[in-house]
Amino acid sequence: MNRTEAVKQVAFENDKIDGLLVFNSSNLTWLTGFCGASAMLIPRAGESVVYVQGVNYAQAEAELRGFKVELVKHGENMMDKIAKQASALNAKRLAADTLNVESWRALSKRLGSEKTLEVDSGFLRELRKVKDKNEIKLMRRAGELTSEGMRVACEVVAAGVKEYEVAAEIEYALRKKGSSGTAFETIVASGLASAFPHGGCSDREIREGDLVVIDMGATYKFYRSDMTRTFVAGKPSAKQKKLYEVVRAAQKKAVEAMKPNVEAKDVDAAARKVIADASYGEYFVHGLGHGVGLDIHEPPTLSPDSEDVLAAGNVVTLEPGIYLVGYGGIRIEDTVLVQKKGTEKLTNGPYALGKEYL
Amino acid sequence: MNRTEAVKQVAFENDKIDGLLVFNSSNLTWLTGFCGASAMLIPRAGESVVYVQGVNYAQAEAELRGFKVELVKHGENMMDKIAKQASALNAKRLAADTLNVESWRALSKRLGSEKTLEVDSGFLRELRKVKDKNEIKLMRRAGELTSEGMRVACEVVAAGVKEYEVAAEIEYALRKKGSSGTAFETIVASGLASAFPHGGCSDREIREGDLVVIDMGATYKFYRSDMTRTFVAGKPSAKQKKLYEVVRAAQKKAVEAMKPNVEAKDVDAAARKVIADASYGEYFVHGLGHGVGLDIHEPPTLSPDSEDVLAAGNVVTLEPGIYLVGYGGIRIEDTVLVQKKGTEKLTNGPYALGKEYL
Repeated sequence: MNRTEAVKQVAFENDKIDGLLVFNSSNLTWLTGFCGASAMLIPRAGESVVYVQGVNYAQAEAELRGFKVELVKHGENMMDKIAKQASALNAKRLAADTLNVESWRALSKRLGSEKTLEVDSGFLRELRKVKDKNEIKLMRRAGELTSEGMRVACEVVAAGVKEYEVAAEIEYALRKKGSSGTAFETIVASGLASAFPHGGCSDREIREGDLVVIDMGATYKFYRSDMTRTFVAGKPSAKQKKLYEVVRAAQKKAVEAMKPNVEAKDVDAAARKVIADASYGEYFVHGLGHGVGLDIHEPPTLSPDSEDVLAAGNVVTLEPGIYLVGYGGIRIEDTVLVQKKGTEKLTNGPYALGKEYL
Repeated sequence: MNRTEAVKQVAFENDKIDGLLVFNSSNLTWLTGFCGASAMLIPRAGESVVYVQGVNYAQAEAELRGFKVELVKHGENMMDKIAKQASALNAKRLAADTLNVESWRALSKRLGSEKTLEVDSGFLRELRKVKDKNEIKLMRRAGELTSEGMRVACEVVAAGVKEYEVAAEIEYALRKKGSSGTAFETIVASGLASAFPHGGCSDREIREGDLVVIDMGATYKFYRSDMTRTFVAGKPSAKQKKLYEVVRAAQKKAVEAMKPNVEAKDVDAAARKVIADASYGEYFVHGLGHGVGLDIHEPPTLSPDSEDVLAAGNVVTLEPGIYLVGYGGIRIEDTVLVQKKGTEKLTNGPYALGKEYL
């Protein structure tokens, strides 16, 4: 069964709506396999319609199979077209996956009333939480590429090298192996900046003894991966080693806790307890992890206030950290697949503060 | 005068609203110089408040100057905090720069009524259209880095090289010179895929005689740049040369037409006429260009149905193209600054189908 049919079965199981509108680009890619669509109308009865602007139309004609493709010409209003088509398909009550207030007003006006158009951003994202076999294959490859990039990072980090030079070598390695760009902006945060979880990547020169947090990911055929390691430029101090061991132990506990039907907040708690027991609880200033897939952040969320329950096919990050402002920070992150039994790490690589400690 | 003060003068010149809410991340970066904020409340009277999640709080404390920073803790609802603060500041009628329907409902409920919260996505983006001296300096650097990447591309394109290998060399060159990642996903579209304006970047091997469209950009301190060249792998055919000359002439006409107080659609028309006169009008399937800055696509828009009027300080792309499905495509694009008199090209580089034709 293709994804659109699967979506229909869930969306139309009761008779609350007779049409689903999709605008989010990752949802559109997931449904169509094509990344150049602007919108999609999935009616209860009749053929689904994919809306494509002129700039992408020839590509859609070549690549989109099994969908009716509707060209949105320059000067044409897509909302007009959607409203007319919905009416022709007798889809009177619609739900959209995302709309800003202005677009929602514009479209509901054309549909007749604001009551005919609800917005439910969670619906398709929930379905995307469980990856199918093909998605897992692609994410495995994205993970391999990411791990390859981290091995390069481990080689390159040294006193005298600039943060952006480390990023350059990582990204070059990913690309040469076939990654289509980075999954997000690479973080290479050294010295005091390593205490900022989103410490960026500047022209700062790494110094002897610095902690260097490297957070990066590859993308393979639209699927992303996410991985962090922390290295020391030179010989790690006793305190750096100690912090590292605490974070590493926290991540191990999280991996052990992860299985289907476990509450995501309990996995967060398992890791958080290790860090709290070592008296660093207040310095773990973010959630344990997040889902990854077509988006770098997607459900499920692993945090103290998450309401998600894990299922086989979820792909999530496990990324405990300790951040000491004025000193430095350590984070270890892998992208991990939840399986019926156990887990599979999609990223893998140096669990050490530097290549000489492997 | 700082940007927040400038925004206040425009936002509160009449008494329609007494507070502005900012959620869009580029708007937040533009206002604060910091890229880790979640929201900002600018009241008519009193101090502006920047909302920051725990994960970015230490960095905000270190980097954000001149703003009140409010920590949003795990489990706290940011909309609650905003509504309370707005009430304390006596800001009863608010306008937000962007909100999806669900967030708008959640926030207006807390504020008391949907009538107290309007959404106007254009307001801050309009102000951002005119770049100040510092922004122009950063965009000039982004343009230089981009041009450097394109020179590398010109060297690398050849039969037998894969599309993603070209991207790897471009991005490596950008990064090594100090670009913070790409401004958008690099396009290297060869052979028939060059006829798709967003042809992507695959593992296809470039063949002798292929047209290769390369669309890429650097980012420097959050500011982006955008540039396209089309090269031929090997010796160009007479038809390839002819197409190239038409597109090049169209871009030149556009540059000539660009000045303050000119309607953006007239600049589009100037380029479009050259292509139409050469009988390729129907194959120029997109608008002439778009504004660039913190976002890769921002106002003003240069297209047949644009309502923008150009002003000194606008930075836009000029990117005419001809796309022949089943044959190939050609696009030439530069990022250009509109000045009081004339223009300044922020990207510059090989205007030729290959290095041997320079």
